[in-house]
Amino acid sequence: MFKANKHRIQTHIESLARFTATPGHGTTRLSYSKEDAAARHYIKQEMNKLGLAVREDAVGNIYGRLDGALKNAPAVIIGSHFDSVPNGGSFDGPAGVVTGLEVAALFQEYGLEPQYPLEVIAMIEEEGSRFGGGVLGSRMIAGQISPADLTEMKDSAGLSAAEAMEKLGFNAADIGSALRTGNDVKAFLELHIEQGPLLEEAAQDVGIVQMIVGMTEIRITVKGKSGHAGTTPMEGRADALAAAVSILKELPGMVLGEADRPVLTVGKLDVLPNGANVIPNQVVFTVDIRSANSGTIQRILRKIGQLVTDAEMPGIAFSTEELLYADPVEMSADIQSLLIENCEKLSLRYRKMVSGAGHDAMIFAGFTDTGLIFVPSKDGISHTPEEWTDYAQLQKGIEVAFETIVQLTEAKKKSSNTEM
Amino acid sequence: MFKANKHRIQTHIESLARFTATPGHGTTRLSYSKEDAAARHYIKQEMNKLGLAVREDAVGNIYGRLDGALKNAPAVIIGSHFDSVPNGGSFDGPAGVVTGLEVAALFQEYGLEPQYPLEVIAMIEEEGSRFGGGVLGSRMIAGQISPADLTEMKDSAGLSAAEAMEKLGFNAADIGSALRTGNDVKAFLELHIEQGPLLEEAAQDVGIVQMIVGMTEIRITVKGKSGHAGTTPMEGRADALAAAVSILKELPGMVLGEADRPVLTVGKLDVLPNGANVIPNQVVFTVDIRSANSGTIQRILRKIGQLVTDAEMPGIAFSTEELLYADPVEMSADIQSLLIENCEKLSLRYRKMVSGAGHDAMIFAGFTDTGLIFVPSKDGISHTPEEWTDYAQLQKGIEVAFETIVQLTEAKKKSSNTEM
Repeated sequence: MFKANKHRIQTHIESLARFTATPGHGTTRLSYSKEDAAARHYIKQEMNKLGLAVREDAVGNIYGRLDGALKNAPAVIIGSHFDSVPNGGSFDGPAGVVTGLEVAALFQEYGLEPQYPLEVIAMIEEEGSRFGGGVLGSRMIAGQISPADLTEMKDSAGLSAAEAMEKLGFNAADIGSALRTGNDVKAFLELHIEQGPLLEEAAQDVGIVQMIVGMTEIRITVKGKSGHAGTTPMEGRADALAAAVSILKELPGMVLGEADRPVLTVGKLDVLPNGANVIPNQVVFTVDIRSANSGTIQRILRKIGQLVTDAEMPGIAFSTEELLYADPVEMSADIQSLLIENCEKLSLRYRKMVSGAGHDAMIFAGFTDTGLIFVPSKDGISHTPEEWTDYAQLQKGIEVAFETIVQLTEAKKKSSNTEM
Repeated sequence: MFKANKHRIQTHIESLARFTATPGHGTTRLSYSKEDAAARHYIKQEMNKLGLAVREDAVGNIYGRLDGALKNAPAVIIGSHFDSVPNGGSFDGPAGVVTGLEVAALFQEYGLEPQYPLEVIAMIEEEGSRFGGGVLGSRMIAGQISPADLTEMKDSAGLSAAEAMEKLGFNAADIGSALRTGNDVKAFLELHIEQGPLLEEAAQDVGIVQMIVGMTEIRITVKGKSGHAGTTPMEGRADALAAAVSILKELPGMVLGEADRPVLTVGKLDVLPNGANVIPNQVVFTVDIRSANSGTIQRILRKIGQLVTDAEMPGIAFSTEELLYADPVEMSADIQSLLIENCEKLSLRYRKMVSGAGHDAMIFAGFTDTGLIFVPSKDGISHTPEEWTDYAQLQKGIEVAFETIVQLTEAKKKSSNTEM
């Protein structure tokens, strides 16, 4: 039985955590930032050390490839993303990237040769913290994003995704070359932290994801008219923040009474011009809605649309854009079976579960067999500096991933040429 | 009769407007920023050209002084501030600084010698856009701010006012040297744009301010707990933004039913960490309240205090700080009389009025005779790039200011030595 190297895993996680814009206040690593560039350098260097053929696609996803014995065979891809939310933790994303690195390290250490090529991937902009929407790296791989989309997506400083990419030497116009399909990808496997409390509460080691909930993110823009806080009478105002509050106060009620316990979050809200003595002329906020049932999401979206339509106020204009829409997605039944088999072989406690968080796996599931492994999150928290997974737990998850990758790539010992 | 120079006035206003962090989107000139440094350089250079003795006090207010014939006599100060709100206009503040420069230019041009010293002043941080609270330059002159206050006041990047000053070569520890008192200041006169519609609607040239409304600014901080937008059930959340909205939705109602038409504004609101898929763990917002009646302000503050006290929510902590409290302030009756006399002499249409906006004049009124002149604001708007005052209107206001300064300084023609 092969053992993953806990020390090596910890070193990778801690090394990546140092590439943050907010030292001492968690990981803040926005896509195409200088922290991205530094983490990218580290990942490529580590891939090189493992004897992988390293390349970056036109939009900045990183691949490290170990060719297979079979010629022109589709690849088995393992990995996750390396961007973070603002002031997030060290595990959300990196745990899966490090899984890819450790699986490749075990291939090297034990002299394994895959029949199908093995590719380790580190993707950008899964969180959507810079350009909104999220899972951008995998959506570009799946061909869901056009060059025009990249020009229209802007960060908070007004820089487009295309411009940000170009600053790091990538080429948004060549996005087509980033496309992967079911013809050249045999399977995708991702390990991710749970970001919820279920595994820890039940003292289980591994979550085998059956389904990822459907999710949508919309952006509501409220435009009014600025003016002086002291000289504009209350009745003459078109206060964009007061108007936004009239929508915001109704939003939590939109999910109550829905049987399948959907969640709704307003996580990002920006006020302009944001001066204490100036009436706001613009407020922009996001609404994130998730449910295992696409009908529920559609119903909540319709209710919000109606709310915005009904919110007539003098001098105020509301507009709504959909930044992301993803239906609930099933993971591959075959890969779930392999994961169960390997948990049992390794004597790990596992459960089947639904993921409330979106992951790159949900995008890959659209074109190839996809599996998603969860490891426990301490106290069930994530997207904060306190996010934590014990390295011993991460090691167990990685060992399940390794066994599964050996099966999916049909790897053999180089010397003896016997199947494992 | 002396005429102010409209071309010179326009050149000064347009020159200062170029020192903005947001070219094409109005004037954004935060105190101690590089735009402040550039405007500061321009103002000092223009003061020098006018033969004024230029100095900056320890905290960055700029003075240009013309000595008077009387030895050790108290000074007559004229001027305003040169900072701006984010994306503000070209006139709020600069109109008054340029008035000071133009009055000094007329003294030079016509060979006038004051008995009492004339000082032109350009003050910092009136808007409070960088450090909150506002009228900081004049409050430091009035001795209302301690060195500790300057260490505690922080900008949005966490830099203290003391640190920001030091970067520009000033010295917060020496704030005591910036103090002025009734012993060395005979009078203060400020010209400002009205920032409201009354003068324009009545086709009047000049507003003579009798009183400045009382105003207060409080900051409410809401702390919750962040978490993942997809994996945290609605009932387990301590969402700081949802909690803030429960306060925000009640605020406009706090001023309704008050007889003296107070105004209340939430102009600045910041969400942390401000990621679309992260439950907010902190929201900070300001509340600005103004009324001609201090009892009204006190009553509204008590209602808001009660609202915050009553807003108990699991995992949420509310706190409130007072950033500014200023009672309604009367302007000097003697200076009002001079202003009326001069408007009549110059055949200008004028009105007496109440200022709904706070100004440095309200701080000076605490220790010296103070006058405040308004000129019309096109469409009554301010704190936006569209803020506008016709230069011919500004010229008329400046001529009233000039005549009044000649009286207050008891200026005489140098050659003839006759009183004007």
